[in-house]
Amino acid sequence: MMFVGAEIFIEPGQTDSEIYSWFELMQKYGLGITRIRMFESYMRKGEVWDFSLFDVAFEAAEKYQIKVYANLFPETNFSDVGGFKFPKTAEHLGAIANYIHHVVQHFNQFNSLYGWVPINEPGSGSLPEDDFTKDRFQTWKDGRQKASYNSNGFTTLDLSKREFLVAHNIWFLKWLTQEIRKYDKKRPIHVNNHDIFKNAAEYDFPNWREFLTSLGGSAHASWHFDYFSRNQFAVAMSANAEILRSGAGPIPWFMTELQGGNNTYSGKRPLCPTKEEIAQWLWVNVGSGSEGGMFWCMNARRSGFEAGEWAMLDFQNKPTDRLLMASCVSKTVSQNHDFFADFSVQDSRVSVLYTRESLWIEQALHIKSIELEGRMVGGVMKSALSYFEALSEIGVHASFKEIGEYNFELDDFTGQAIILSHQLSIPSKYWRPLNDFVYKGGKLIVDGLTAYYDENAYCILGPDFPFKDCFGALINEFKFVDNLFDFYLSLSKLELKSHLWRGTLKLRTATSISKSKFSSVETNTYGCRNDFGKGHVVWIPSLLGLGSRISGSYKELSSFLRDELSDIVTQLPVSFETHQPGMLLKLIRNANRYMTVLVNKSGSDQILKLNINGLVYERVAFSSSHHGTYINDAIAISSEETMVVEWRAKV
Amino acid sequence: MMFVGAEIFIEPGQTDSEIYSWFELMQKYGLGITRIRMFESYMRKGEVWDFSLFDVAFEAAEKYQIKVYANLFPETNFSDVGGFKFPKTAEHLGAIANYIHHVVQHFNQFNSLYGWVPINEPGSGSLPEDDFTKDRFQTWKDGRQKASYNSNGFTTLDLSKREFLVAHNIWFLKWLTQEIRKYDKKRPIHVNNHDIFKNAAEYDFPNWREFLTSLGGSAHASWHFDYFSRNQFAVAMSANAEILRSGAGPIPWFMTELQGGNNTYSGKRPLCPTKEEIAQWLWVNVGSGSEGGMFWCMNARRSGFEAGEWAMLDFQNKPTDRLLMASCVSKTVSQNHDFFADFSVQDSRVSVLYTRESLWIEQALHIKSIELEGRMVGGVMKSALSYFEALSEIGVHASFKEIGEYNFELDDFTGQAIILSHQLSIPSKYWRPLNDFVYKGGKLIVDGLTAYYDENAYCILGPDFPFKDCFGALINEFKFVDNLFDFYLSLSKLELKSHLWRGTLKLRTATSISKSKFSSVETNTYGCRNDFGKGHVVWIPSLLGLGSRISGSYKELSSFLRDELSDIVTQLPVSFETHQPGMLLKLIRNANRYMTVLVNKSGSDQILKLNINGLVYERVAFSSSHHGTYINDAIAISSEETMVVEWRAKV
Amino acid sequence: MMFVGAEIFIEPGQTDSEIYSWFELMQKYGLGITRIRMFESYMRKGEVWDFSLFDVAFEAAEKYQIKVYANLFPETNFSDVGGFKFPKTAEHLGAIANYIHHVVQHFNQFNSLYGWVPINEPGSGSLPEDDFTKDRFQTWKDGRQKASYNSNGFTTLDLSKREFLVAHNIWFLKWLTQEIRKYDKKRPIHVNNHDIFKNAAEYDFPNWREFLTSLGGSAHASWHFDYFSRNQFAVAMSANAEILRSGAGPIPWFMTELQGGNNTYSGKRPLCPTKEEIAQWLWVNVGSGSEGGMFWCMNARRSGFEAGEWAMLDFQNKPTDRLLMASCVSKTVSQNHDFFADFSVQDSRVSVLYTRESLWIEQALHIKSIELEGRMVGGVMKSALSYFEALSEIGVHASFKEIGEYNFELDDFTGQAIILSHQLSIPSKYWRPLNDFVYKGGKLIVDGLTAYYDENAYCILGPDFPFKDCFGALINEFKFVDNLFDFYLSLSKLELKSHLWRGTLKLRTATSISKSKFSSVETNTYGCRNDFGKGHVVWIPSLLGLGSRISGSYKELSSFLRDELSDIVTQLPVSFETHQPGMLLKLIRNANRYMTVLVNKSGSDQILKLNINGLVYERVAFSSSHHGTYINDAIAISSEETMVVEWRAKV
Repeated sequence: MMFVGAEIFIEPGQTDSEIYSWFELMQKYGLGITRIRMFESYMRKGEVWDFSLFDVAFEAAEKYQIKVYANLFPETNFSDVGGFKFPKTAEHLGAIANYIHHVVQHFNQFNSLYGWVPINEPGSGSLPEDDFTKDRFQTWKDGRQKASYNSNGFTTLDLSKREFLVAHNIWFLKWLTQEIRKYDKKRPIHVNNHDIFKNAAEYDFPNWREFLTSLGGSAHASWHFDYFSRNQFAVAMSANAEILRSGAGPIPWFMTELQGGNNTYSGKRPLCPTKEEIAQWLWVNVGSGSEGGMFWCMNARRSGFEAGEWAMLDFQNKPTDRLLMASCVSKTVSQNHDFFADFSVQDSRVSVLYTRESLWIEQALHIKSIELEGRMVGGVMKSALSYFEALSEIGVHASFKEIGEYNFELDDFTGQAIILSHQLSIPSKYWRPLNDFVYKGGKLIVDGLTAYYDENAYCILGPDFPFKDCFGALINEFKFVDNLFDFYLSLSKLELKSHLWRGTLKLRTATSISKSKFSSVETNTYGCRNDFGKGHVVWIPSLLGLGSRISGSYKELSSFLRDELSDIVTQLPVSFETHQPGMLLKLIRNANRYMTVLVNKSGSDQILKLNINGLVYERVAFSSSHHGTYINDAIAISSEETMVVEWRAKV
Repeated sequence: MMFVGAEIFIEPGQTDSEIYSWFELMQKYGLGITRIRMFESYMRKGEVWDFSLFDVAFEAAEKYQIKVYANLFPETNFSDVGGFKFPKTAEHLGAIANYIHHVVQHFNQFNSLYGWVPINEPGSGSLPEDDFTKDRFQTWKDGRQKASYNSNGFTTLDLSKREFLVAHNIWFLKWLTQEIRKYDKKRPIHVNNHDIFKNAAEYDFPNWREFLTSLGGSAHASWHFDYFSRNQFAVAMSANAEILRSGAGPIPWFMTELQGGNNTYSGKRPLCPTKEEIAQWLWVNVGSGSEGGMFWCMNARRSGFEAGEWAMLDFQNKPTDRLLMASCVSKTVSQNHDFFADFSVQDSRVSVLYTRESLWIEQALHIKSIELEGRMVGGVMKSALSYFEALSEIGVHASFKEIGEYNFELDDFTGQAIILSHQLSIPSKYWRPLNDFVYKGGKLIVDGLTAYYDENAYCILGPDFPFKDCFGALINEFKFVDNLFDFYLSLSKLELKSHLWRGTLKLRTATSISKSKFSSVETNTYGCRNDFGKGHVVWIPSLLGLGSRISGSYKELSSFLRDELSDIVTQLPVSFETHQPGMLLKLIRNANRYMTVLVNKSGSDQILKLNINGLVYERVAFSSSHHGTYINDAIAISSEETMVVEWRAKV
Repeated sequence: MMFVGAEIFIEPGQTDSEIYSWFELMQKYGLGITRIRMFESYMRKGEVWDFSLFDVAFEAAEKYQIKVYANLFPETNFSDVGGFKFPKTAEHLGAIANYIHHVVQHFNQFNSLYGWVPINEPGSGSLPEDDFTKDRFQTWKDGRQKASYNSNGFTTLDLSKREFLVAHNIWFLKWLTQEIRKYDKKRPIHVNNHDIFKNAAEYDFPNWREFLTSLGGSAHASWHFDYFSRNQFAVAMSANAEILRSGAGPIPWFMTELQGGNNTYSGKRPLCPTKEEIAQWLWVNVGSGSEGGMFWCMNARRSGFEAGEWAMLDFQNKPTDRLLMASCVSKTVSQNHDFFADFSVQDSRVSVLYTRESLWIEQALHIKSIELEGRMVGGVMKSALSYFEALSEIGVHASFKEIGEYNFELDDFTGQAIILSHQLSIPSKYWRPLNDFVYKGGKLIVDGLTAYYDENAYCILGPDFPFKDCFGALINEFKFVDNLFDFYLSLSKLELKSHLWRGTLKLRTATSISKSKFSSVETNTYGCRNDFGKGHVVWIPSLLGLGSRISGSYKELSSFLRDELSDIVTQLPVSFETHQPGMLLKLIRNANRYMTVLVNKSGSDQILKLNINGLVYERVAFSSSHHGTYINDAIAISSEETMVVEWRAKV
C-alpha cells in the first residue's frame, strides 16, 4: 500500500469548516493519509476529557476517506516544538498511561483511524538528568550481562551512558506500544526517528522491529541535513532513506515527515522546498522502498513556533506548487498501482556500513579544539556518507547500514561488497563475521581509522590486530599530514584527496597499491590489497572518503570504486557509464518489471549514458519537468528533474 | 536651555585640588553642566554617613558655576560598571530608600545641584532571577487586565515576561522618583536609557514621561553601536537621538552620555572619538532637538574597569582635541542663544516605526542556527534602521518611533508617511489606527514580514488579514530565496537587493508594481500599490530595507523612497538633490529662522546640491573644519566635516 | 648529568614481556631515563595494596639500567587525562598522604628509582569551587600581610583569587614534597609545570625552588603552542625553555614532557612531530640549559583518551624515525660527555620580562567583544614573545623571565638590557629596582601599554608616573588607531607595524624618536629616548611587538632592536650578520669551549653569515640532516635542520 500524505495540524481556534476544508483538499489532490498530533493539552482540563476538537478531524477524515495516523502527544509545554522524549518521573509515566487509556479507547471508534504513532521523533542526543532516569540507568546497569570480551583486561572508557540511552529508547517505545495494545490490538504502530545522521548513535532498529508495524522517519532538510549543502539534499535524502530501509529490515517503512513548505524562524537553515525537490524527495524515498511520504504539514500551525511555516497550503488555503507536485506523484503511484503494490528494492549488494560504537567513541573523545572535520563529531558519519555519495554518482544503488543490520549469516558472499570508511570502532562481536565475510567471497573496502578501537575504545592495532590475516597487513603508525593531502594509487594512477592522517602499513600477505608521486623508491606503504579465502580486501588507512568529500569532488573516488567493484558494477541491470557528479539512480523491481528513479542535481541539463544489462526500456513513468526522454541507452534529463523510467527484463 | 557638559567622576583617593581643577577646566572650556555618580559606597561606613568627598565636588561646582546632575548610585560591587538595574529584595529596596533619604536631603543644600538622575542606564535585557522579582511578576500577572483580543482563541506564546520587564522598569523608575520627591519637590528628574537599539524592547517612554522632567540616553559608540560600522556612527547617533526625541514627546530631552575618550579594555569595540566625531555627535543630537550632550567623562576614573579610559582630559589633566571641539560647539550654541533658547525640530513628517512586540517575538523565536541577519535578534531593528538611513542619504529628516508614540489622533494625515519595515508584529490595538491613517490621507510603506503576527505571535496572514482592504491584497506565501537576491520594480525599473524571504501576493484592489527581469509574463506578484480612502499603501513583502543595508548601498532604496514620497520630499524646506551616500541632514527651526545640521561621512570632500523651498541662505553658523561654504544652492563640505547652516524663511 | 628519555606508560593488561621490551628498547636506543605514572587506581583495591604491575617495570628498569622518575598519581577518574590539581576535601588530602606513605616506602627499595615527581602538571587556570579550597582561601586572606602600598587610597579591583591561586599551588606542592621526604630523604624531587604561556600567571618559581631539586615542564606542541603556527614551534620551545631556565634559577631543570608521536583525538591541534622537530626540540632545550628532555611517551597507552597516540614506538613495537632521532641526539650528548657534564648557558644579557600581574589584570578586565589580539587574554604574553622572537631572528639568545626572577641586586647593569613589551602592570615593588637598573647603566626598552597600572589595576599614568624621571616623559593619551597601523622612527627611518593603540608623549628630559611619514611638522610625539644616570631608556607606547607579530614579519622590529642593543649585540661571541627570519641560535659554554645550537625554520636551505667575536670554529658536533657545514664564518644549513657547532675561545 502506497501513501502520499500530509500532516494536518489541529489546534484550538480552528473552525470546523477550516478543518473540513483541509481533508477535502487532501482528497481533491489525491493525498490519502494524514497524521494528527493528539495534544493532551487540547483534550483535557483537569479530570475532564473533551475530544471534540479532534473528533471533528476524524469525522472529516471519514467523510473524505483520508486515513489518519494518530500521533500520541501527552501534555507538554507549548514552547516544546517536538514534544518530550522520555518520562521524567514515575508519576509522569502514570499520567502518560492514563492519557493513552483515554485517547486510544476514544479514537478506536473511528474508521478513519489508520494507526498509531506512539511518540514523535524519539531520540534526544543525551540522557535527561532526572532521578527517574538515573534510577532506570542503575537498574539497567545492575541487570546487564557481563561481556565475555574484556579488551584484554585493560581499563576502558565508560560508554555505558551511551549504551543505556539506546536501551532506554527501546524500553520507552516498547512500553508505549504495550500501553496502546491494551486498547487496540491490531492497528499499525509506526515510529518516526529523526536527525538520523546524528541520532543513529542511539537507535537500535533491529530491536524496534520486534514491536513496530512499520518504521518511519523525519527527514527535514532545514533541521536535519546540516552535513550537506542544498544541492546534496537529494543524496542526503537517499542516505536517510537507506538507513531506514536497513533499519526496517523485514517490516515496511515510510517517510513520516518531509518538509512541506517554507520555514522562517524555525529550522536551522531557512529554505522553501521547490516543487522539484518535492518530487525528488518523494521518489528517492520510494526508490529506497518507502511506502511513500508524508509532508509536514498540510496547513500551517497558526501561533508561536512554526506559525505560518512548513505548509503545503498557502495562507489563503490554496494549494502551492509543492502540493500540486505531491499530488502529481501520488497520481503516478496510483496509476501504477499494480507495480507499487508489491515492489522491492533491487540494490547493488554494495553496503556502506557504520558502527554505533564509532559514533559513541568519536563523541566521547572529542575536545574543543581547532575545527577539522575528521576530528569533530560527525567525522565518522560523513566518512561513511562519502562512499555512499561517490557510489551514487556512478549510478550504484548502495545500501547504508548499521553493522548490526547486515546479514552475515550466508554461506557465500560472492558478489557482495562492504565499505568501512573511517569506522573507528569495530566491536569484537563483528571480528569473526567480517573475517568470514571476506573468506566466503566478499569484497571489503576499508579506509581511514577503521578498526582503530574495539567497542571499549581499546586500541586493537597492535601485533594481534584481529584482521591481520584478513587484511594481510598491520598498521605501523598513523601520522597527521594535513587537512587535505594528495594520495596516489600505483596501478590506477589515481590521485585522490585525503584528510588529516595517513597510516603506514607493514605488509604480511598483502601487496602494496600506493605510490609516491615523484619517488621511484617506495619507503612506505599507505595502501594494500589482500586475497583472503575466496574474498578480497582493499585497505587504505587514510581518510580518502572524507578527503574527497571536503575537496568537493568524487571524480577520483568513484573511479577507485568502479575499479574495485567492477565485478559487481558491470553486472548491474542499470548504472552510469561515466562518473556523473550530482546524479542519483535508484532501482526497484516488481517481478520482471523494473523502475529506475533518476535525479539530476548536477546544476545543468544532462545526457546520461547508461550501462544496461538484460533490461529493455519500456517508458518514462514520471518526469517532474515533462522533458525527460530516453533514446538509445541514454537519458536526457533536465536540471533538477526527477524521472522514473520503467524497464522490462529481457526474456 | 542648552548644555554641553561632561561627567566628573568622583572617587576616594582624589585630592581636593584635583577635583577643583576639573570644575575649573569645565568653566574655562565653556562646559556648563556635569553629572556625578553619588556612590553610596563612598559615603557610608556602616551607619555613619560622610559626604565630604562629594561636598568638595559640589562646592567646586558652585565656585565655577557648573550645574550638577546628581546620579543616584546605591551600594553595589566595584566590579559592577554600570550599577544594578533592579532591587533584589524588599530589604534592598528599603536600603535604597534610606540612601535616597540621606543623599537627597544632604545635597539639596547646594546651589550647584541642578537635578537628579535616579538610576544609571535602566534596562538590562532580562529579568533578574531573584524571589523579589518573581513575587512582583506574580503580583503583576494577578493584577493584569484580561485582554479584550485573544487571537481567535488560539494557544499562544507566553510573552508575559517581556511585558512585565517593561512594567517593572516603569515601576522601579517611578518609585525612585517618588522617593526623591519626598525630599526635593522641584528639581528636574532625568533618566538616561542606553543600548537603545536592543533595550528599546523594554522601554515604554510615553509612560516614563508622566514622572520625568526630561528624558536622556547613553549613546556610546563602543558599547552601543554594534549594528553599525564606524562610518555609520553619525547616522546611528541620529537614529538614537530620534528614538529619544520620539520617546520624550512633549517633555525635553538631552543626550546624557556620549563617549568622551579612548577605551582600551572596556567597551565592545576599542576606539577613540576623533574631534570631528565629537562635533558630529553633539550637532546630530541638537539637530534632533536635544538640549545638548554630556560626555562620559571629563576625568578618567583611576582604578579597575575603565581606569584611564573614556576621558576628555588627558593623563596630565590637559584638554584633548575632543574637549576643545566640545568647547567650540558649546560656544557656538552660546553665541546663538536666541535661536537655541526655544527651537524645535522641523522633521519631514516621514516616520519610521518599530513595534516593541516585533522585538519580543524575534527574540522568542530565535534559535541557534546558520547566522543570517534577518533571522537573528536585531533583524527587526536593523530593518527599520535601513529606511531611516536611506532617507538620511536623500536629506530627509525622518522621525524614528515606537508605534505607540505615533500620534494617530488626527483627522487628516495628508503629507505624512509611515514606514513599517519588517515589523513582524502589529498588535491588534494598532490595526484600526493604521487603517485609519491611510484612509485619512496618509502614505504607508510596508516591507518584509511586517504584520506576520499579532501581539501574541499568532499569524494573521490568512483570509481575514486585518489590512486586506487597506493594503488591497493578501499574502499567498513567503518563500526563502537567498541571503541576497534581486528585486525588480516594474515602473521605476529599479533593481533593489532583498534578503532571505519573498512574499507572493494575491491582489484584491491593489495593482502590481513588481516584475521579473527577463520574463514578459508575470506569474507572481511580489509588490503592490493600493489606494485606500484618501491615502496610499505600497506593500512589498520582501526585505528590501535589510537587503539594501547588507549589500552596503542605499542607492536604489533611496530612489524608491524619493519616488514614493515625492509629494512630501519635494515640499521640504531643504533636501539633497541627489542620493548622497554617507551624508546626513537635520533641520531645526526657531520662528522664521532655520538651521540645517549637515554631516559628511562619505569618505571624501563633497559638493552637495540642495533642493531649497522658501528659504534664503544666511550664513554658516558652525563648521568643524572651518572649510564649509555655501554657494548657489550648493554646500561644499569636507570629509568628516559637520556644518550648521542658518536660513531665513522667505517672506 | 644529561638525559634523553621517554615516559613508559604502565597500565593493567600489559604483559611482563611487553613491559620488559620497552625498557630493553630504551637501553638499545640509548635513552637512559623514564618516568612512570604511579596510578593508585592500579595499586589499591580497597585496603589492599598490590604493587606488582609496577614492580615489573622497576625490575625491568634495573635489568636494563634505566633510571625512573616515579610520578605520583593518586586515585582519579580514568577520564581525567592529566590528573587532579588540588585536593578537594580534608579527607582527600589524608588519602593522598596515605597513598604517598605506601608508594614511597615500597618503591624506595628499587635501585632503578631515580626520583619523584609529586604531581603531574600542577596548575589549572582557576581555583576549584569546593569548600576545602574556600576555607583555605579564607585562611590565606586572614593571614595575609597588609600591603605597605595602597594605590593612593583608591578603591581597587580585587585580584586576591589570582594571588591565592599562586599561593595555593605553592602550598600543595610543598606539602607533597614534605610528605615524600618523610619516607625518602634524598632522592631528587622534580615538578613539571605545563601550558606555560597561560599558566605562568599562577606559578611562582622562585618560591618552588626552595623545596624542589629540579624544575621541569610539559611543552606539548599540540596542547600548549596555540599562540604559534607550526613553523614557530622551535622558537615557542625556546621561549618555553627560557621561562623554565629563569624559573629554575640556581637549581637544574629539564624538559619533562615533549610530544613523542602522533595525536588523533587528544590535543588541541593534530600533528605528528617530524624527526627534524624531535631534534629541534631536544637541542633547543639543551641550548637553554636543560639537562635534556623526555618524551611523552615511549609506548602508547592502549585505551580511551590518547589510546594509540603520542608514542615513539609504533603499533608493532618498532622504533619510529622520531625515536631513532632522539637516540641519535642522546648518543651525541654521550659522546660529548665532558662538555655536557657541566655546561652553562651563555645568554646575551638581554632579558624579556613579563609580570604576573599583567596577566591577571588582562584577564580580569577582559569582556566578550570584537576579537582583537591585544585586548584578548594572551595579548600580554604574545607581546613579550614578539621581542623574544625578533631577537631570535638576529641570533641573540635572550632570556625570558617573570620580573621577580630578574636579579636587580647588582651595582652595575652596563651591558644588560630589559625589554618590557605591553606589560600592563608594573607592581610598585619593582618601580625602584627598574629605575635603579637604568640609573646603574642598564638599557630599558618599553612598548605598548607597559606601566599603565600598578599591581591593583590602578592607573599610574598621571603626573606622578613613577618612571617619569627614568623615562624622561609622561603619557598624554592612548588612542585607538587600528588593528594594524604604520609607525615611523625618525632617525632609523624604520617603518614598523603597530597594533590597536598609540600613546602620545609629553617629553620632559627625553627626545623624540618618532616621526610622521608625510609631515615635516611633528605635532605629536609617539616615542622617545632618555638618558638616566648611566643608562638609557627607549619608550614607544605603541604595540610594536604585537603589531609585528600579527603582521607576520620581524624585519623592522629586529632592525630596531639591533640598533638599540648594538652595544650588546656587537659584543656577542656569535650572532647573525643579518636578519634571518625563522632562524634560531642558542649559545652554551663549558670553560673555553662553546657550542651553538642552530635551527633552520625558514622554510628553505640557508647560508648564514655569522658575526663571530673571539671564537674559533672547531667542528659540527651534530647535524640532524648530516648536511650542515661551516665555511668562512658562514653556516650552510638545510631547511628544518638542527646543527650544533663547537667553538673554542681564542687565546
